[in-house]
Amino acid sequence: MEIRFAVFIAVSLDGYIARPDGSIDFLAPFHDEEHGYGAFFAGIDALVIGRGTYDTVLGFPEWPYGKKRVIVCTTRPPPATHGEEMWSGPPRELAERLDREGLRRVYLDGGVLVRGFLREGLVDELTINIIPLILGAGRPLFTSGLPDMSLRLLEAKSFSSGVVQLRYEKR
Amino acid sequence: MEIRFAVFIAVSLDGYIARPDGSIDFLAPFHDEEHGYGAFFAGIDALVIGRGTYDTVLGFPEWPYGKKRVIVCTTRPPPATHGEEMWSGPPRELAERLDREGLRRVYLDGGVLVRGFLREGLVDELTINIIPLILGAGRPLFTSGLPDMSLRLLEAKSFSSGVVQLRYEKR
Repeated sequence: MEIRFAVFIAVSLDGYIARPDGSIDFLAPFHDEEHGYGAFFAGIDALVIGRGTYDTVLGFPEWPYGKKRVIVCTTRPPPATHGEEMWSGPPRELAERLDREGLRRVYLDGGVLVRGFLREGLVDELTINIIPLILGAGRPLFTSGLPDMSLRLLEAKSFSSGVVQLRYEKR
Repeated sequence: MEIRFAVFIAVSLDGYIARPDGSIDFLAPFHDEEHGYGAFFAGIDALVIGRGTYDTVLGFPEWPYGKKRVIVCTTRPPPATHGEEMWSGPPRELAERLDREGLRRVYLDGGVLVRGFLREGLVDELTINIIPLILGAGRPLFTSGLPDMSLRLLEAKSFSSGVVQLRYEKR
């Protein structure tokens, strides 16, 4: 496969991507800075998101993905409202399909989804934005049971907000 | 209190300080680089370590702390073998005692111990060395239930090994 899957995600220092109820209010003070998300987003052919992320963004005042192709992984597909596609199969099958379609760079978002792709060895690149907070509780990015994975650090950058951005690729 | 407590610790990207059995073999390939540990160690008045760390270092070919004062926090104190002191009380009481004794900078080591001090708001500085590995299982540095804590990033440094060192202080 020539397709590459990339994660771009914010986590607290203690590894949480959301509070226990799914809220990401703690990220708000850090949104004033751009952290390179725009350039990252411009460089992807499509997004694959999990059902939790999908339900969260449906609650946003505006669909945040513009005209970018979006595939929602969910076992109980709801009707699409913004041209998004629904997918209920395994990650590898989706990866192979998107590769055949000629996609070259795909953004993965959502804890469950990212872990599903990590379990299959399908994550090529990880950009982790470490928020200078210990949250104490929440939804973790990594959980026990993932396969071990050696990473190559591509870049580490810090921002005046105190966010540190780590970019890795699969070794 | 004028005393400051500092953590200097290595964690995998998924937040583990040791494998499930306590082994830290995965750190070995990263020991060729110094990561500033020597300067950090030279700048501390004493170490406070937990029982797990103590039992681990007792298995080392050599006592790794030289003549530095070491206090072991344990509820079942064994006889000291290297001049180390045993402490069975709560973290705050120890902190106050060491402060009264005039200590100014103390190094905390061990997951359970660090979390005990975090729970009491007694950690002033955190140096986290992120190892470019996903381990998939092990003993976490942070566990659910810690109080939330806002941090100020003091420095982020990367090393040719791929280790990234993040230094924070309590805000």
